[in-house]
Amino acid sequence: MSTYRVAQVNAAGGPLEITEREVPQPGPGHVRLAVEACGVCHSDAFFVDGAVAGITFPVVPGHEIAGRVEELGEGTHGRGWRVGDRVAVGWFGGSCGHCLPCRQGDFIMCQTLQVPGWTYDGGFAEAVIAPVDALARIPEGLAASAAGPMACAGVTTYNGLRRSSARPGDLVAVLGIGGLGHLGVQYAVAMGFETVAIARGADKADLAKQLGAHHYVDSTAGGGAAEALKSLGGAKVVLATAGSSDAIAATADGLTHRGELVVIGLAPEPLGISPLQLVTGAKTMRGHASGTSQDVEDTMAFSALYGIRPMIETVPLDEADEAYRKMLSGAARFRMVLTC
Amino acid sequence: MSTYRVAQVNAAGGPLEITEREVPQPGPGHVRLAVEACGVCHSDAFFVDGAVAGITFPVVPGHEIAGRVEELGEGTHGRGWRVGDRVAVGWFGGSCGHCLPCRQGDFIMCQTLQVPGWTYDGGFAEAVIAPVDALARIPEGLAASAAGPMACAGVTTYNGLRRSSARPGDLVAVLGIGGLGHLGVQYAVAMGFETVAIARGADKADLAKQLGAHHYVDSTAGGGAAEALKSLGGAKVVLATAGSSDAIAATADGLTHRGELVVIGLAPEPLGISPLQLVTGAKTMRGHASGTSQDVEDTMAFSALYGIRPMIETVPLDEADEAYRKMLSGAARFRMVLTC
Amino acid sequence: MSTYRVAQVNAAGGPLEITEREVPQPGPGHVRLAVEACGVCHSDAFFVDGAVAGITFPVVPGHEIAGRVEELGEGTHGRGWRVGDRVAVGWFGGSCGHCLPCRQGDFIMCQTLQVPGWTYDGGFAEAVIAPVDALARIPEGLAASAAGPMACAGVTTYNGLRRSSARPGDLVAVLGIGGLGHLGVQYAVAMGFETVAIARGADKADLAKQLGAHHYVDSTAGGGAAEALKSLGGAKVVLATAGSSDAIAATADGLTHRGELVVIGLAPEPLGISPLQLVTGAKTMRGHASGTSQDVEDTMAFSALYGIRPMIETVPLDEADEAYRKMLSGAARFRMVLTC
Amino acid sequence: MSTYRVAQVNAAGGPLEITEREVPQPGPGHVRLAVEACGVCHSDAFFVDGAVAGITFPVVPGHEIAGRVEELGEGTHGRGWRVGDRVAVGWFGGSCGHCLPCRQGDFIMCQTLQVPGWTYDGGFAEAVIAPVDALARIPEGLAASAAGPMACAGVTTYNGLRRSSARPGDLVAVLGIGGLGHLGVQYAVAMGFETVAIARGADKADLAKQLGAHHYVDSTAGGGAAEALKSLGGAKVVLATAGSSDAIAATADGLTHRGELVVIGLAPEPLGISPLQLVTGAKTMRGHASGTSQDVEDTMAFSALYGIRPMIETVPLDEADEAYRKMLSGAARFRMVLTC
Repeated sequence: MSTYRVAQVNAAGGPLEITEREVPQPGPGHVRLAVEACGVCHSDAFFVDGAVAGITFPVVPGHEIAGRVEELGEGTHGRGWRVGDRVAVGWFGGSCGHCLPCRQGDFIMCQTLQVPGWTYDGGFAEAVIAPVDALARIPEGLAASAAGPMACAGVTTYNGLRRSSARPGDLVAVLGIGGLGHLGVQYAVAMGFETVAIARGADKADLAKQLGAHHYVDSTAGGGAAEALKSLGGAKVVLATAGSSDAIAATADGLTHRGELVVIGLAPEPLGISPLQLVTGAKTMRGHASGTSQDVEDTMAFSALYGIRPMIETVPLDEADEAYRKMLSGAARFRMVLTC
Repeated sequence: MSTYRVAQVNAAGGPLEITEREVPQPGPGHVRLAVEACGVCHSDAFFVDGAVAGITFPVVPGHEIAGRVEELGEGTHGRGWRVGDRVAVGWFGGSCGHCLPCRQGDFIMCQTLQVPGWTYDGGFAEAVIAPVDALARIPEGLAASAAGPMACAGVTTYNGLRRSSARPGDLVAVLGIGGLGHLGVQYAVAMGFETVAIARGADKADLAKQLGAHHYVDSTAGGGAAEALKSLGGAKVVLATAGSSDAIAATADGLTHRGELVVIGLAPEPLGISPLQLVTGAKTMRGHASGTSQDVEDTMAFSALYGIRPMIETVPLDEADEAYRKMLSGAARFRMVLTC
Repeated sequence: MSTYRVAQVNAAGGPLEITEREVPQPGPGHVRLAVEACGVCHSDAFFVDGAVAGITFPVVPGHEIAGRVEELGEGTHGRGWRVGDRVAVGWFGGSCGHCLPCRQGDFIMCQTLQVPGWTYDGGFAEAVIAPVDALARIPEGLAASAAGPMACAGVTTYNGLRRSSARPGDLVAVLGIGGLGHLGVQYAVAMGFETVAIARGADKADLAKQLGAHHYVDSTAGGGAAEALKSLGGAKVVLATAGSSDAIAATADGLTHRGELVVIGLAPEPLGISPLQLVTGAKTMRGHASGTSQDVEDTMAFSALYGIRPMIETVPLDEADEAYRKMLSGAARFRMVLTC
Repeated sequence: MSTYRVAQVNAAGGPLEITEREVPQPGPGHVRLAVEACGVCHSDAFFVDGAVAGITFPVVPGHEIAGRVEELGEGTHGRGWRVGDRVAVGWFGGSCGHCLPCRQGDFIMCQTLQVPGWTYDGGFAEAVIAPVDALARIPEGLAASAAGPMACAGVTTYNGLRRSSARPGDLVAVLGIGGLGHLGVQYAVAMGFETVAIARGADKADLAKQLGAHHYVDSTAGGGAAEALKSLGGAKVVLATAGSSDAIAATADGLTHRGELVVIGLAPEPLGISPLQLVTGAKTMRGHASGTSQDVEDTMAFSALYGIRPMIETVPLDEADEAYRKMLSGAARFRMVLTC
């Protein structure tokens, strides 16, 4: 093909419009991927709305990309990748390699982190140009439509849990059963945690059990999430996938001694947690930030090994705008994935 | 002696009154100490004011106790203590031994933690009865008047730092140069941190340098503490000894990536820190709770080895009320210590 | 009953002889258990043979005890235990509470650790007197005959793995599929590790798969265990349940970078690992020592939650000697358990 | 200059001969340094003797390089380096960036690690071509002759200690007071450890105290190093800078519970430590491997802040062979440094 299609936003908040472009050549250190699937993430809204620093329209969102290597740019040979390799690219879209965090090996903390859909055109497209260090190998047996969401929703929850202070057998709660939480519950169970799923209302109880949760807490019932967690002995870790600062803070008193609240979302509202709450029980609140391409690779390998899959609705790229709106509305069950 | 003197509070908020009592006998598992010195801590106000659960008047405050073993109760023989041994008792006044944290060996998290001045009569007295597991050996060369403050102000800062994520060479800031902070700065330097002291106003700069700090930050100047920390590269750890939630929260953006805010105080006001602040840079806020009698022993041994001493004003027990009021007023430089 | 039966050894290496004794009363701080089941562990041989310090005959071995609380001694009331409670006692038979490790909360490192069958009469008996801090609660749904082996073989492998440096998704190898290893494999899988079982010969491959192992390595084939592990990418952790120093050392080169060899057994022969082997790849060899009564409780709770059970042969107490000899011969599949 | 001088070895074991070469141009990703000083390390013998894989003669040894950036190759602009910058290059001479450890950010574990003097010409020369990721910035106030040894001897000991399990106040022993150990003792003290220096004979006692050690142990006296450490309470960490496997192993029983033996050297002889020794006390033996360029930078910054310097003998490059032979003989006090 000499042209390819993208779903792009031409102005802040505008619709995703299908546009034809010339197929680009990968520059030095970059590869071109043929996209097979791309998940739709709530964070895409930051870019669609132009709500982050340095964004310029038109924007092609999409940072849950799965596809195949199509062309290798200069300087990317001999690094383990071949044309045809199945790869994913997530929120981690490349790092500079020379800032302090990069020199420390902490690439996700790169001071000029690349993010698809933000600092370069993302995966709502038939092709993507990405830095070679952003690639994560997809294991056999994991479909592209499942791999895409692993590259952001998956790695964020998997990594958030494996790097938490919880050890097998500890009580771990996942707050929210949505695009992230429905994966988080599955990961928590496969990691050997006594797993609590927390959501609003009684109707998600069945889903929670189906995902493997040992307990379900309806945060709107009784004394709320904190009381329910206390009655289970207190959570060693709460993985907060819900976006609301108030919902997150409402779990803090449900932590056991030395418990840890792992915060994933980017809400700007204060959490409203006091020193008294933290010191009593020596509790921790920790912000967790996604993961690198290697972390994505680990996430996919783990998911393949333990049979963990996202629940998705696939939609052709042509219907990107509808898919994005459905995600925004909260009606997705649980991850919208565009396919090419 | 068959009687001894205590400084007791007869009703919430009331003055410390010198009272004569019969010398008590230590019950099973307890020892009686002859008190030589007892530090006055801001936390004593919780007890003087009756502001904590389960407190009953009269109250004898004081949880920075240094003295000598005077009598061993039943069942305390053969546990390493002899009459005449120099010992300290701090905030950790004994643990139950059979709740979950105790069974895990995490005594300071005991669900029925004993605290001198709260759950039993404290050290504003010529004698104290304490559980044997609350005793910490005072090393040679450390005076009782120095050992007392080590048992609360000392262990809290020493332990907070040694259990933090900072490693030698990391930038560590101590917020507040008061009863806790002036020890925290000394500990940070002796632990090999690049040490920043933060206080309000320019006039504490000299003191900070005298304590060994490599940098001084006046939090009222320029862009505030966060900006100043950023210009130094960002702090790996901020040890927040200041009591104000706002002052604590104002340092959060001065943390480097993976930085950690160690909170010590018990302020009930929310910290006003958002998920966005935590996730960006993957930061942590951790509540730190004092330390056990073994931790106190470690603190004193470290202080003896590295020549670290509290700056104190000693006052006879008779003037307990004046000493307490001076501490409350903020005029103490830096720790009031009652001596017998 | 006013008498009870024990299986005792009257002289080093001698047979286990059934003997009638007067039922003892628990002293202060102790409880009497009615034993329902007791596992036979290879470590019992140290005691039967009189091969450890301070042992005096007659010896009643047995440190994988499961039973019910029958009588509470002085000072054990109000600590959470009631007559009839189902409890286990393992290698950890009580700690002194006042040596340095105990004061640090590290009870299993107690300098005068109590061990049933060594420092007091063990569980090859209808009743046992044990210190109250040695008790671990058996969860509902876990039979006494399963709980017994959890108190030593179970906790050693569970604890060894949960405190290792492996994180979910890492390659973890269990060396040896015997009394310990057949539990270790099950735990490793339930903790989310990519699990390798290593044993001698091809005939244990089916068993390994049945236990959930993702890979089986016959250490007698090809280049041996190290080569096989390397071909799988290198193990992050090897849990060495096999007793031979040579077999353990033969896995070292199969560790990945920063890999960890967790050693459980007590073999006196040198491991024959060089600085060069350790420094290349920055590897670690760590000795792991069982776990406390709380760890045993965690082990049993985890086992109940994830459906993990020892494979056992139950034998009446009367046949203790035959059971012990069968264990020694290596013919047990996989844990001999005496029942009362 | 259009030519520069190097001290090269033309055949295995041969002398270092001064040779004139054409000044080379740095290729893509590389820079040329004007060397000001280069330390002589015992590891240079591996290369001089051709005792490592893939080495080809002539060899220019030297991996403790300090100098100035003289020319930037293609693709190295905009990475923070300018002509004239003062930089050091140590054992870490560059990493591939795409093997598994590199993708995990663990560059020192790179599967094709570059080492100056081994995989490219080293610092016994007036100029060196090095990959840009190998550069470490020298802080103001640290002379080139001090910076050189920091890039290998310094980082190895500093990093070995800061990444150990020791916390301030713990007893830490440094085995050997030579090129590495005399730095290790200084670092241990500055990190707040209770520091023990161990060496053969009584005559190094004064030096140990001068370096700041709190205790000196003559390993040839009394019961040897292990007994002496035990009498001090047992070491939390032993940093073994001595090369002999026997000397290292002789300290193992001097570790306290949960103690850690950090092994640095590359001796091929087995350590002769048994499972029994490791499990009793739950001890660890860990191989430690130098550090990255960022670690070198941290080492130098820490050394500048705390006034830590190597004790050196400087010798002009022309006398490289004499300096190397003196180092080999063990007569160096304590680091030979070639200067240009």
